Amino acid sequence: MPAITLLTDFGLRDGYVAAMKGVILGIAPNVTVVNITHEVPPQDIASAAFILATTYPYFPSDTIHVAVVDPGVGTGRRAILLDTPCGRFLAPDNGILSHVLAGLSPARGAGSGIAVPQAPLPVGSRAYVVQNRSLFLPGVSQTFHGRDIFAPVAARLALGLPAHEVGPEAGEVAAFPAPVPERLPNGGVLGTVLHVDAFGNLITNLRQEDLPAGPLRVRMGGRVIAGLSASYQEGGEILAIIGSSGRLEIAARNANAAKTLTQARGAEVVVEQV
Amino acid sequence: MPAITLLTDFGLRDGYVAAMKGVILGIAPNVTVVNITHEVPPQDIASAAFILATTYPYFPSDTIHVAVVDPGVGTGRRAILLDTPCGRFLAPDNGILSHVLAGLSPARGAGSGIAVPQAPLPVGSRAYVVQNRSLFLPGVSQTFHGRDIFAPVAARLALGLPAHEVGPEAGEVAAFPAPVPERLPNGGVLGTVLHVDAFGNLITNLRQEDLPAGPLRVRMGGRVIAGLSASYQEGGEILAIIGSSGRLEIAARNANAAKTLTQARGAEVVVEQV
Amino acid sequence: MPAITLLTDFGLRDGYVAAMKGVILGIAPNVTVVNITHEVPPQDIASAAFILATTYPYFPSDTIHVAVVDPGVGTGRRAILLDTPCGRFLAPDNGILSHVLAGLSPARGAGSGIAVPQAPLPVGSRAYVVQNRSLFLPGVSQTFHGRDIFAPVAARLALGLPAHEVGPEAGEVAAFPAPVPERLPNGGVLGTVLHVDAFGNLITNLRQEDLPAGPLRVRMGGRVIAGLSASYQEGGEILAIIGSSGRLEIAARNANAAKTLTQARGAEVVVEQV
Repeated sequence: MPAITLLTDFGLRDGYVAAMKGVILGIAPNVTVVNITHEVPPQDIASAAFILATTYPYFPSDTIHVAVVDPGVGTGRRAILLDTPCGRFLAPDNGILSHVLAGLSPARGAGSGIAVPQAPLPVGSRAYVVQNRSLFLPGVSQTFHGRDIFAPVAARLALGLPAHEVGPEAGEVAAFPAPVPERLPNGGVLGTVLHVDAFGNLITNLRQEDLPAGPLRVRMGGRVIAGLSASYQEGGEILAIIGSSGRLEIAARNANAAKTLTQARGAEVVVEQV
Repeated sequence: MPAITLLTDFGLRDGYVAAMKGVILGIAPNVTVVNITHEVPPQDIASAAFILATTYPYFPSDTIHVAVVDPGVGTGRRAILLDTPCGRFLAPDNGILSHVLAGLSPARGAGSGIAVPQAPLPVGSRAYVVQNRSLFLPGVSQTFHGRDIFAPVAARLALGLPAHEVGPEAGEVAAFPAPVPERLPNGGVLGTVLHVDAFGNLITNLRQEDLPAGPLRVRMGGRVIAGLSASYQEGGEILAIIGSSGRLEIAARNANAAKTLTQARGAEVVVEQV
Repeated sequence: MPAITLLTDFGLRDGYVAAMKGVILGIAPNVTVVNITHEVPPQDIASAAFILATTYPYFPSDTIHVAVVDPGVGTGRRAILLDTPCGRFLAPDNGILSHVLAGLSPARGAGSGIAVPQAPLPVGSRAYVVQNRSLFLPGVSQTFHGRDIFAPVAARLALGLPAHEVGPEAGEVAAFPAPVPERLPNGGVLGTVLHVDAFGNLITNLRQEDLPAGPLRVRMGGRVIAGLSASYQEGGEILAIIGSSGRLEIAARNANAAKTLTQARGAEVVVEQV
């Protein structure tokens, strides 16, 4: 049976996540449910989008990923099932699937090495509007569709419900423009911090193939870092490294780079040849 | 096989919760164990009682709910198994089952729409004192009955142990008086905040049926809120809404109402006709 | 099938722990995975070592324990599989197994009642260097061996892979000297705080059998505590008790002893006869 993952901003202090799991177990008692995280900052759709897109590829391709950061719950915003060859995604249609869509799309220019995010669906994928009320809990609340809609639909998908039974095709899915690396006149590249992880590592949108060839210099927040390190123990107090998502990270040796540099999501980084 | 849920104030920094799970897996290797929460503020029985009572109804009715917020561990306080048609509850006899008992009881007055909590057991329920030491870990510690008593008993119940084998019947179970909505002379109702969730939503003891009919005004902490919203995006900066537990909540749009209003558990709310 | 436990300093804010679970599920879909904790303070190997050693004994003896607090990831530090009659441990070779090794060894002096930690392997145990790349994810990253090495190896062990297939024997395993109780001239004993738990309890390296006989007095941080309590509700505001790991703890009644006493790991405690 496929597994189900959960990603929310509900925190773990309350019983909200457990209520979702109870609903799932009541429908599909043998399914494995895995938390991705529930500590997304409240209403931070961009953070959720990054974590989802960098984590789901490590799950089996039939996994059902439920992502609920949903400030628009109870309004007219749609609920979406995105069915792809790499996983199924249940989420509000609010941009939380942006990085998943960008990563699945074939839009990385062969010449430029620069990613182009796209809202149109990747090849082999379909999106549906989740609106078949017979799949929901009776008495859907105004404020908790994670429990009343997403959880029971995920459980039924795990039991074999065909995707098209959740509702009609959705057409395009909401996506915000992901920051795109920018080629500089001097041959360098300008990137952006997409995410700060719990260690304080500043994870950028620059992949190995976005970087200039040869000996490099990395600049951020007035600091200049010479070359890339091969581990967090190598280089100076502040170092640059290709991290576990394949992206350039700025890290601090045994410390928190975001705090040391007072940088955050959206900060700029420049990589250029020496 | 029935599932087991765990609710404690142990936090997730230490290995305490994992030790309980290890004991359970050693006895019942195939049981599904679900965390409700482990982030109840230390020794906060009232908070645990609220979270348990609003979460357990979403689990299958044969689920075994283990709730251990237990400042009296090692004293004479009893350990209880409450066996109901809606779930089985293993907990210290310290009031942590108060809201479960109140919710299961048929005491909601038909005329007043006001809930009356009761310590006597609801119809169809029985309570037992957990004292059959052959079910416990050998060498019960003074300080961690979650691991040494509640976990192994839960695992054996999941394997089919009849409830009455844990010990003799318990009679009444400890319950603290839950705050009761109060009808005001002007036809309005006075309620109380039972819980502040991780979003800062102030969840009251007022259910839809406790509210006056017609256009409403909600007052809390000097603020006046006009009417009920249908989503967190509707209404003013501060809004009132029937939340996911069926109770009136005071929320802030994309913000933390408890902080904005500097209100906490026990705060009063008034709902009256305009 | 054996269970797998995970203990890291990754936190639960990001998708790192979930990525490990995704890898495990892709290889061993039916394995049970249990979190010990992911909230070890960043790079705090000593804290991880204590939590692991006091938690693993409650799991079945075929469990595979994956412990990844790994500041040296990507450097020359070895990855180790320690195979013992009480459990299997996958970890970087950086001292994180110190307390496991000390606890498994038969070195507690019968006469002195004092533990002597040892780096040599306990009887019946073997250690291997994890270096068979055919067991790893393709394209091992420089920064996340938890996902790329430890998770897939753990999953294959759960499926029955013999320990010796992970790589050659390791000889001795890194261990730091655990603080040893010291006998005082007056017959008392000098101990050390090994761990402060989430409640603020100060857990020492003194076991029941390390303590002098007869009526006792406990001294820490200028305070004198008369005798041992049998529960957290007994004794004065500050109390001493044999806690759930069998070690002397200094606790505060319904409060946080570490904050009240402004004491931390490494603080000294003296126990002497009255």
